[in-house]
Amino acid sequence: MPMTPLNVTHPFLDADGDKLREECGIFGAINAADASAATALGLHALQHRGQEAAGIVSWDGKEFFVRRGLGHVAENFSSPEAIAELPGHMAAGHVRYSTTGGSGLRNVQPLYADLASGGFAVAHNGNISNAMMLRADLVGKGSIFQSTSDTEVIIHLVATSRYPTIADRLVDALRLVEGAYALIVMTPEGMIACRDPLGIRPLVMGRMGESILFASETVAFDVVGAEVIREVEPGELVLVDFSGEIRSVRPFGNPSPRPCIFEHVYFSRPDSVFAGRSVYEARKAIGAQLALEAPCEADLVVPVPDSGVPAAIGFAQQSGIPFELGIIRSHYVGRTFIQPSDGARHSSVKRKHNANRSLVEGKRIVLIDDSIVRGTTSLKIVEMMREAGAAEVHFRVASPPTAHSCFYGVDTPERSKLLAARMELEPMRQFIKADSLAFISIDGLYRAVGHEGRDAVRPQFCDACFTGDYPTSLTDLAQTEQKSAELPFADPKAA
Amino acid sequence: MPMTPLNVTHPFLDADGDKLREECGIFGAINAADASAATALGLHALQHRGQEAAGIVSWDGKEFFVRRGLGHVAENFSSPEAIAELPGHMAAGHVRYSTTGGSGLRNVQPLYADLASGGFAVAHNGNISNAMMLRADLVGKGSIFQSTSDTEVIIHLVATSRYPTIADRLVDALRLVEGAYALIVMTPEGMIACRDPLGIRPLVMGRMGESILFASETVAFDVVGAEVIREVEPGELVLVDFSGEIRSVRPFGNPSPRPCIFEHVYFSRPDSVFAGRSVYEARKAIGAQLALEAPCEADLVVPVPDSGVPAAIGFAQQSGIPFELGIIRSHYVGRTFIQPSDGARHSSVKRKHNANRSLVEGKRIVLIDDSIVRGTTSLKIVEMMREAGAAEVHFRVASPPTAHSCFYGVDTPERSKLLAARMELEPMRQFIKADSLAFISIDGLYRAVGHEGRDAVRPQFCDACFTGDYPTSLTDLAQTEQKSAELPFADPKAA
Amino acid sequence: MPMTPLNVTHPFLDADGDKLREECGIFGAINAADASAATALGLHALQHRGQEAAGIVSWDGKEFFVRRGLGHVAENFSSPEAIAELPGHMAAGHVRYSTTGGSGLRNVQPLYADLASGGFAVAHNGNISNAMMLRADLVGKGSIFQSTSDTEVIIHLVATSRYPTIADRLVDALRLVEGAYALIVMTPEGMIACRDPLGIRPLVMGRMGESILFASETVAFDVVGAEVIREVEPGELVLVDFSGEIRSVRPFGNPSPRPCIFEHVYFSRPDSVFAGRSVYEARKAIGAQLALEAPCEADLVVPVPDSGVPAAIGFAQQSGIPFELGIIRSHYVGRTFIQPSDGARHSSVKRKHNANRSLVEGKRIVLIDDSIVRGTTSLKIVEMMREAGAAEVHFRVASPPTAHSCFYGVDTPERSKLLAARMELEPMRQFIKADSLAFISIDGLYRAVGHEGRDAVRPQFCDACFTGDYPTSLTDLAQTEQKSAELPFADPKAA
Amino acid sequence: MPMTPLNVTHPFLDADGDKLREECGIFGAINAADASAATALGLHALQHRGQEAAGIVSWDGKEFFVRRGLGHVAENFSSPEAIAELPGHMAAGHVRYSTTGGSGLRNVQPLYADLASGGFAVAHNGNISNAMMLRADLVGKGSIFQSTSDTEVIIHLVATSRYPTIADRLVDALRLVEGAYALIVMTPEGMIACRDPLGIRPLVMGRMGESILFASETVAFDVVGAEVIREVEPGELVLVDFSGEIRSVRPFGNPSPRPCIFEHVYFSRPDSVFAGRSVYEARKAIGAQLALEAPCEADLVVPVPDSGVPAAIGFAQQSGIPFELGIIRSHYVGRTFIQPSDGARHSSVKRKHNANRSLVEGKRIVLIDDSIVRGTTSLKIVEMMREAGAAEVHFRVASPPTAHSCFYGVDTPERSKLLAARMELEPMRQFIKADSLAFISIDGLYRAVGHEGRDAVRPQFCDACFTGDYPTSLTDLAQTEQKSAELPFADPKAA
Repeated sequence: MPMTPLNVTHPFLDADGDKLREECGIFGAINAADASAATALGLHALQHRGQEAAGIVSWDGKEFFVRRGLGHVAENFSSPEAIAELPGHMAAGHVRYSTTGGSGLRNVQPLYADLASGGFAVAHNGNISNAMMLRADLVGKGSIFQSTSDTEVIIHLVATSRYPTIADRLVDALRLVEGAYALIVMTPEGMIACRDPLGIRPLVMGRMGESILFASETVAFDVVGAEVIREVEPGELVLVDFSGEIRSVRPFGNPSPRPCIFEHVYFSRPDSVFAGRSVYEARKAIGAQLALEAPCEADLVVPVPDSGVPAAIGFAQQSGIPFELGIIRSHYVGRTFIQPSDGARHSSVKRKHNANRSLVEGKRIVLIDDSIVRGTTSLKIVEMMREAGAAEVHFRVASPPTAHSCFYGVDTPERSKLLAARMELEPMRQFIKADSLAFISIDGLYRAVGHEGRDAVRPQFCDACFTGDYPTSLTDLAQTEQKSAELPFADPKAA
Repeated sequence: MPMTPLNVTHPFLDADGDKLREECGIFGAINAADASAATALGLHALQHRGQEAAGIVSWDGKEFFVRRGLGHVAENFSSPEAIAELPGHMAAGHVRYSTTGGSGLRNVQPLYADLASGGFAVAHNGNISNAMMLRADLVGKGSIFQSTSDTEVIIHLVATSRYPTIADRLVDALRLVEGAYALIVMTPEGMIACRDPLGIRPLVMGRMGESILFASETVAFDVVGAEVIREVEPGELVLVDFSGEIRSVRPFGNPSPRPCIFEHVYFSRPDSVFAGRSVYEARKAIGAQLALEAPCEADLVVPVPDSGVPAAIGFAQQSGIPFELGIIRSHYVGRTFIQPSDGARHSSVKRKHNANRSLVEGKRIVLIDDSIVRGTTSLKIVEMMREAGAAEVHFRVASPPTAHSCFYGVDTPERSKLLAARMELEPMRQFIKADSLAFISIDGLYRAVGHEGRDAVRPQFCDACFTGDYPTSLTDLAQTEQKSAELPFADPKAA
Repeated sequence: MPMTPLNVTHPFLDADGDKLREECGIFGAINAADASAATALGLHALQHRGQEAAGIVSWDGKEFFVRRGLGHVAENFSSPEAIAELPGHMAAGHVRYSTTGGSGLRNVQPLYADLASGGFAVAHNGNISNAMMLRADLVGKGSIFQSTSDTEVIIHLVATSRYPTIADRLVDALRLVEGAYALIVMTPEGMIACRDPLGIRPLVMGRMGESILFASETVAFDVVGAEVIREVEPGELVLVDFSGEIRSVRPFGNPSPRPCIFEHVYFSRPDSVFAGRSVYEARKAIGAQLALEAPCEADLVVPVPDSGVPAAIGFAQQSGIPFELGIIRSHYVGRTFIQPSDGARHSSVKRKHNANRSLVEGKRIVLIDDSIVRGTTSLKIVEMMREAGAAEVHFRVASPPTAHSCFYGVDTPERSKLLAARMELEPMRQFIKADSLAFISIDGLYRAVGHEGRDAVRPQFCDACFTGDYPTSLTDLAQTEQKSAELPFADPKAA
Repeated sequence: MPMTPLNVTHPFLDADGDKLREECGIFGAINAADASAATALGLHALQHRGQEAAGIVSWDGKEFFVRRGLGHVAENFSSPEAIAELPGHMAAGHVRYSTTGGSGLRNVQPLYADLASGGFAVAHNGNISNAMMLRADLVGKGSIFQSTSDTEVIIHLVATSRYPTIADRLVDALRLVEGAYALIVMTPEGMIACRDPLGIRPLVMGRMGESILFASETVAFDVVGAEVIREVEPGELVLVDFSGEIRSVRPFGNPSPRPCIFEHVYFSRPDSVFAGRSVYEARKAIGAQLALEAPCEADLVVPVPDSGVPAAIGFAQQSGIPFELGIIRSHYVGRTFIQPSDGARHSSVKRKHNANRSLVEGKRIVLIDDSIVRGTTSLKIVEMMREAGAAEVHFRVASPPTAHSCFYGVDTPERSKLLAARMELEPMRQFIKADSLAFISIDGLYRAVGHEGRDAVRPQFCDACFTGDYPTSLTDLAQTEQKSAELPFADPKAA
């Protein structure tokens, strides 16, 4: 295999699905009798945050143990043998969406290193926006990188820090880092969970008897029977040792939090609680708000399954139009099939979604989807409804137009491929061939998730994908852009 | 591996899920430019009918080609290389639920044999209820079996028939066979599709340009862009040759059809049309009928996902109680995980289903499920609702009590494990700990699927799992029972 | 994969090595505490008789167990787990050289079938020369074949025989069979070992305490610590039951034996005893005879390793010329490597054999090899010696010219590719570029293995590869030849 | 898997064979059209130096490519696909004997790192005897190690060196290193081959047209058709760039060379030339010297195959006693088999070596082996000869008693398991149950390889395994010994 080039910051992966994708989920447990079994279950509940690889590291009081694999958690961590390889009362794990090419397992987290202070393992959700610059500095001084992951920068910064304690070395490292991170760190002294100063990526803390747990979403606690304590706060480090003592440190002052609002729109599971609010209720409220902002005459409210379902229920309840399954989703998807050459049109969408023809025929329908990214899937779904005989197809979107790339750990198409970056509302409607098209307003979205609207001075969330208002500087991108002025759509800040 | 014992008839497999399971789906295409690619897509759309193994056989005018694999269709047949191994304009395939132990691939269909007349491939959905008796006869005369599949009996009967044409030999073989079968047969002369005289298992016929297709369900035609022609009728053989000529033969007279009513309840996909009726509409009608027969006061109608959703929508629309997702289903299930020993109760159900606690807390809920088999899952779901704070939990079931095993190709627990075979309604309610429990009546079910009620003299469907009224004799079972009088619940006929 | 065509008789496989290859070794043990462990070890000692696949079947008094694998015995049968899958006091196994294409494991022996009389397993060394004709008959009557192996014909003949006992049915079957076979058969009543009436392929009988063993060569008894009893005689069936009773049956009269003389030349291991004589001593005697028949002036006797070594020692001792390792053989061969395009000549031979340049330079050498098949390897070895600086290269061959194909279970190139079928002695010498070339005479060979010469009326061995004198009729070949008169070299009979 | 502990220096692996084992072979090619194909072939010819893992790194002018695998070269590098993954005109590879536990592929060489100066790959044969100390220093300053290999120390020393050019940085690193090394290094500027100041491990330089090659033994050049230029000299760095320029640097002054004398005894292939002398001739000379030093009356000279063969030929020619194959070696060994419990004695040796009973019976034999390590195999072979009926068994060893461990890259049992470290000559004879036993003298060995005897002041070879005279300090071992005074046999220096 080729030595893969560095791919630490640039988010322009070619997504073959037509969704933004959360790139990671993390989970940790300390002082737990079966730390790695709990971690495996917790990761399984976070599987929607990353399906391509999973890893767990455990510590048994003397040694660290590691196991990583491509594929789902269940394929790698469901057997007694796998769990037996991960003994001890402390463990942390990671699921990730993408592994770049063949370099495969090297980039699967948690990353691990032998430092002078002992073993050091880290699981990271997010993206460091000055990783390329930091890496070049470290390599220049003699550091040798094992992976192409931005996360490894943090480890080398810790390894070369001159502070005496591991906690101080971690803070020293994080002061140099810019971007989004929720981290779970393990050392021979215990577990450290922390979130970047703006809290862009989520991290919650739970308890099960004596054990302390950390996870990207509360649903991971449900599956292991634990209770939620609270969120790890933006800019906070929570340190838990093996005596059970818990300390909280806030070395970065008190910036205003900016958690990612797309967790409410799409990333989190509906049965999670995020930023103090039930995600299911938030999505229903978005659907209801959408029905108020953009009502329409129709016979059926049809969700694009599965992510559009809660918003569709909210829309149906607000509007009084019946909620019906006009599109049936197959649970057996995944790979691209060879297409027969004759006559089979659009079957790649059909494999996943099939029109419920008997229901749809002759009806006016309102389709509800969570977002429009490239628009290609939306077009195919509208066409599928029309082929099934729908009289009218109205499209309502449970988020504002997605017009900007994310640089904080979400897999986004490059900006030139985002439909909303390329055209205004009416051309979008024509592109997807709907009879009408409406998005929720940005203020409507903030209202649906519990605020009075967006605070333009101090926005309560990171909503850069809608507004282009990036809450941190983007050092690596700036350098890349200087080199590649030919990119048709310069993305942030200056715009 | 041990030479596996014969397992042709007895349906008492230990199902680790708590559902009846359709054991097979079949698909065939003739005079199609890309017969095997179409077959792969068609099988993929039938994946819900069998997830453990898949196989395709093709014919290129000179040779037969075969490829079989354990696992899903997508894992075995999505690549260009796999399809390239299956050239030709005729192909047929099979997905199956269970493979008995290690003998694995030998039992994966379509089965194939070199007969004196040339190659012969067969894909079979159903179960032959006198296979053990026929097999003993054949072995006594010198036939050597390759698999433990009941389907192989049909091949040996064809091989040893003394009729001159392959069609006559097949009819000769089927006259000796008792039970349920939908078959797709391939020979160097063309394709033969047929259904047992009662039409217990489904089979439909479609067209895409010049190509003629057969499939277990209409949804398989949607995915390849084909149109439905009609059902293959009970007792009918449809013969298609390479000139495109289609002949229909009905060698078994005109018995009254008895298709399996459980296709409407659970087996078929909601976007299929079965026995002339949309399955989605049938399920909604069942839910509405259930709301009429067994109404209750409640705040929310909650489906047990995903199979309970259409009936729940019907129940909600009929009753006026809001439809809500009180249970969130994970799409990442599959294997059994090691359980942490401390504190994690019921997590095997929780991995699959999680209570939407914020929604359910303090509410009176009506749970809608398609059926109750052993009752163990129903109990866990009721308990999960109560732990999430539900004030009352009412359970409504979209089918009559399942009190008898199926011997026609459906994987059923042995009768002594069926909750409805063990107890009356009130003990069942106590067992699952619901505040109330109701099943749809058998006549209600028939009305929901479009009849005026069950015709007691000539029932319109096979409903043996509810009524114990088996439409064929069960030769092998009778012999087995003579040998094993100790079985606590003697199943059919005599009862 | 394609349904592989029948390949029961035709020996014209394309051998990538330049040797005749024995196609099988067989081993069986009955009344042995660890029958399958002993069989694994015994097969391992017979590994030189077939490296591509191995299988063992055992019987534990109630059931048969089977395990087969591609590759070496050690890869498939060395672990406790593998042996634990094969319980019981009776086992038999098989190693084979070739598996035809993808149909792979189906053809790996022992073959097994459930007959009306119970299980029936058979391991076969040899080749049935009327298998195609018998198979066509059987299929015409309704038999369905599982493999493309000629051995399966025997099983179907047994299955359809109308005699009452299994021994009678086996004799009934063998009466119809023509060609070469050493068989080890297992039934629930015990083990049957037998050899064709001419005893073309070898089979010996041994004892270890209570256990009776059968093997292709005596070396297999050495490795398990057993002692040799005697050969199974040509045309003899030896029946051993679980009480330890041994019966001998000779249903085919008393034809003169014709064991394969190539076992002495090349197939058997030098530490085996074949036809009453040490193979090592026989080979040394061949070398000595060759030194008498074709002496030459030289500085060194150099064996082509490893098979030429004993004859070279014999030649050196007889001639007084020193024995030296002028060619070093690598033990790590196997696959074909990509060749660098520049400058690397003949490296495929060099990977296996390398000239010992310091020794050879400036010397006159006598090369000793066991046989010449196509001549291509001989040419490369002569060239290698010259490149290493040899002053003269004389080639002496420890067998007569190989001018005819074998149809009795030995993998031979088709006749048109045999060097000795294409040209006389002097052109052969020119082809391989040797300074002189000589083969042992046919009478010299017979003398070296203990006779006074070849008995032209009743030859003591099968030597058809040298003489074209085939001791049985070759039914299938005759039919094939009628169909393919275009084959440039018609092989036997007419000659 | 556990994080494997550092295992850089201690050689006390438990060898299941009873031989010293060379741990590595290396090969490199620059300015070669098919560099990686040539490297694959070259490594294949060096396979005897390491069978457990192999790796190749190539450079195509822009990028480095790497492929590593467990097992033989042929299993990993024989296919066109494998070679196609390794494009370019420069490549280097490595075969190794042992991979420590599960960490497997991480330790397979060539190791690779991205340095500030660009990619850096290194293949190393030998062992660094202060690696643990150097590693602790590096980790303390922030270096993060990826493997447990001592070789990685060299890379980090290069990465953190402050010299400007890569050649200077490498010299700077090697000045800190103590022990044995032959290295092939690749950088974007070209290839560097070097040998430690004493030249303990071998390295030769060759040419094939424009290409320059390096290899552990000359036999690797034979297989690719290249010619030998000369040895890389002890303490020399040879630098080859892409213009074809070759520079030689000698930064370590001129210490007396001490190449490993065991290369002549056992490690090198007999067709290699080492230290200016044919290995085959050296071994024959050792056998002849042994016949002079320790003659005996006998009927046969029997080599323990295969390594004893050249010395046995030398012994036979000197003594006039016939050379015969009294032991037949199987080419199919490898794994340990389950042993049948009844009656099978010593079969693990018998699987590999079998007595040629017909030859040995009643004879007085001289057994010739290259060395005695633990003595357990020697005992079994003597017993095997006696069981086969030998009248007398005399044992002659082609090296002096092996009484000390090697710390320079050879896998040796710990000293307490070396037979010659535990007892004098007569007890050794009794232990192996021979009628007589003799080893060649140390001076006799030096004479056989071309010297007048061992120069006690400035020994011409490293012979520490015989004499305990280690030519370098052993820093890590000294530290380990301070910690573990309980080891029964303290090894070097102080003794």
